[in-house]
Amino acid sequence: MSETKRQLSLGAMMFFPTGEHISSWRHPKSNAAGSLNFDHYKEIVQTAERGKFDMFFYADELYVWDRFESGIAQANSIRPEPFTLLSALAAATKHIGLAATISTTYNEPYHIARKLASLDHLSGGRAAWNIVTSQTDEEARNFSQEKHLQHETRYERAREFVDATQGLWDSWEDDALTLDKESGVFADKDKLHNVDFKGKFFNIRGPLNVSRPPQGYPVLIQAGASEAGKEVAAATAEVVFAPKGTLEEGQALYNDLKGRLAKYGRKPEELKILPFFMPVIASTEEEAKALLAEVEELTPERLGLDLLSHYLGRDISGFPLDEPLPFTPELEGFNQSKSGLKRIITILEAEPQLTIRQLYKRINNRAIAGTPEQIADELEQWFTNGAADGFIIGFPHLPAGIDDFVNLVVPELQRRGLFRTEYPEGTLRDTLGFKRPQNSFASAPVG
Amino acid sequence: MSETKRQLSLGAMMFFPTGEHISSWRHPKSNAAGSLNFDHYKEIVQTAERGKFDMFFYADELYVWDRFESGIAQANSIRPEPFTLLSALAAATKHIGLAATISTTYNEPYHIARKLASLDHLSGGRAAWNIVTSQTDEEARNFSQEKHLQHETRYERAREFVDATQGLWDSWEDDALTLDKESGVFADKDKLHNVDFKGKFFNIRGPLNVSRPPQGYPVLIQAGASEAGKEVAAATAEVVFAPKGTLEEGQALYNDLKGRLAKYGRKPEELKILPFFMPVIASTEEEAKALLAEVEELTPERLGLDLLSHYLGRDISGFPLDEPLPFTPELEGFNQSKSGLKRIITILEAEPQLTIRQLYKRINNRAIAGTPEQIADELEQWFTNGAADGFIIGFPHLPAGIDDFVNLVVPELQRRGLFRTEYPEGTLRDTLGFKRPQNSFASAPVG
Repeated sequence: MSETKRQLSLGAMMFFPTGEHISSWRHPKSNAAGSLNFDHYKEIVQTAERGKFDMFFYADELYVWDRFESGIAQANSIRPEPFTLLSALAAATKHIGLAATISTTYNEPYHIARKLASLDHLSGGRAAWNIVTSQTDEEARNFSQEKHLQHETRYERAREFVDATQGLWDSWEDDALTLDKESGVFADKDKLHNVDFKGKFFNIRGPLNVSRPPQGYPVLIQAGASEAGKEVAAATAEVVFAPKGTLEEGQALYNDLKGRLAKYGRKPEELKILPFFMPVIASTEEEAKALLAEVEELTPERLGLDLLSHYLGRDISGFPLDEPLPFTPELEGFNQSKSGLKRIITILEAEPQLTIRQLYKRINNRAIAGTPEQIADELEQWFTNGAADGFIIGFPHLPAGIDDFVNLVVPELQRRGLFRTEYPEGTLRDTLGFKRPQNSFASAPVG
Repeated sequence: MSETKRQLSLGAMMFFPTGEHISSWRHPKSNAAGSLNFDHYKEIVQTAERGKFDMFFYADELYVWDRFESGIAQANSIRPEPFTLLSALAAATKHIGLAATISTTYNEPYHIARKLASLDHLSGGRAAWNIVTSQTDEEARNFSQEKHLQHETRYERAREFVDATQGLWDSWEDDALTLDKESGVFADKDKLHNVDFKGKFFNIRGPLNVSRPPQGYPVLIQAGASEAGKEVAAATAEVVFAPKGTLEEGQALYNDLKGRLAKYGRKPEELKILPFFMPVIASTEEEAKALLAEVEELTPERLGLDLLSHYLGRDISGFPLDEPLPFTPELEGFNQSKSGLKRIITILEAEPQLTIRQLYKRINNRAIAGTPEQIADELEQWFTNGAADGFIIGFPHLPAGIDDFVNLVVPELQRRGLFRTEYPEGTLRDTLGFKRPQNSFASAPVG
């Protein structure tokens, strides 16, 4: 390897199956019928692999967004479950990491440890876990509960969930399997361990019935930008999926997160911070801006307003559209995504006179438009100015949007020496430059 | 289609990844290192598909069998989680059904409804669900519980779990998605339904965030041969995985199960009964018997004894090997597999003088040896004499064991006109000859 220059890490994002904008499915180039069709996903992820993306980052929730009628009629609330989708994609790819968004609030550590370990084995070491705590009461009601867990409690549960899961991944030491047909010894019983995890939320005996994952632990990703979320990230995460804001906001979050690592005995390079970017690309800036406007126009007014109501946790559809919000949103006591609400509060602090119409458009439109060079400039600026170790890229429509990025922006990043031209040998940890974690049950190596 | 003769249904069984005998992994032809390697499974399931099997039937448990030291040292307790494995296999096959064994005791209906629906969509309608209730206290302790649910309670929970899951599968009517880019209408809100399921164990709002599976419902399989198990099967199952016994036992169970259907408004052809068979095949009977003896010899004495202790729920390792069991096993109050214990009781009723050594060998060795013609004769006899609608086939070692069956026995069954030579068009339901269920929320078709 002649490249010693620091390299970007890139994740290809998907929440909506046909593009990250809530109305992407309406775009003429979107495969609106593809939401549950394997070939749709295969095409997208094989394109991401052609572009040498570190990973496919698959977001998820556990409900249909039906709080408002527009959510059913105008948005796309159907998507495959992460493990089933990513495992199928593992069989259709060779190098790209596969990141599953899995909630610690509505799952059991044994199941999740086992599924992630299985995905890691079956994919040859390409599994990652985007650890989330879920956000809404609607999700609680799909799991025989009336209310979503309170914010602090669910982060406490998340910490314990991850601890228990790591214990289960360690329950077989790396060399526990002997497979000696002659003597009939399948495993060294001294290298198989009960976990006997006893916590506030979980009480788990173990061992896991899958041996240690090729990566030791699948790569851990976290997205919370709240105080509790940042502490979970500093303690356990290896990748943070960060919100997009101004460069200054990006730098502040970057320094904040990296600064929290030392108290957990971790070094800055053990955590990569990847902000979200959604580039809309064309060969001229004018064309790119026209394309962005075209995408933004796809959202019906009521749907845009209802999305803002959702983020605020309060129905604002009765207020006049061309006046400012008649109340000041407050984080205190808010039990959905605190970082989502905080973004609104930050915008309103800077521009208190924004009307509801201006505000919902600002909130829902997160894309940047430009030529491939302009997009690369923006990414490079964040990367070289202490705001990012790479990016999670969203696409305005799919599958064509990722094709544009891979064909136009990736070569530009490669020309600048910022991004790999081949995958390294090995697992997702090798792609990301992370070490394989030691097994907590194994004795320290001698010497 | 010129074939109108009644046709066999065949499932390719896997519990142990390298063959159905507990010590199959030691066989010279077994891929002992393949337990977590995708290529191992791909080879086996592609062979099953070449042999036109209806489905790959993947058994599962939620723990390492470590009650006895031999279970760790001498048996294989690691295997991939079913959804991750079967989804990856969906991407590597085209026609074969994929049956996941999933416990209703340690799962949530929303997750399972979604994963099965996703697998069904991603595989083009090939998902099946082997509904089990789990068996051991060890499993309970992996899920923050001290004891496994009592037998009646767990079957009650199973019934409710399946009801809730079917409700979730129905939450989108078949034509709910409009996907009209021009008007911006993604779905017809009148064709999306909350489930509002309220039961003793579950309280689930819905709707599911995956639209209705291609098969309506994935095919439902059940294996319980206890009284409670048989009622669940008669009420909900479309396939019963039945234990292997004598022909007379097979006929009795067949008549019993088919006779229970009428009270649930079902017809005999709506439930297929598939007993387990593990054929050991060679070109002469002598060779086949020698091969069977070779497989049976692979089990160390202590492991064989410990397995018998497990089925009995009582450690018998202290008793003299060449004397009969010093107690009479009783079903009353037994909380593991009642059908497993019943098999032992039936054997001892017929032959009370069997020594412990003879008994453990009888229990652990379930294979039949013969030439391809002899094996086909046996299957045909069961099929044509009211004991089976087909079979779940186990293999003495893998991957080579299924190759033998597909190369030698399948052509013989095809020559006799008992088995398909091509898959029909469509889903697993079409392969099995089952109708697609109506959506419970949809109005009855007019006319």
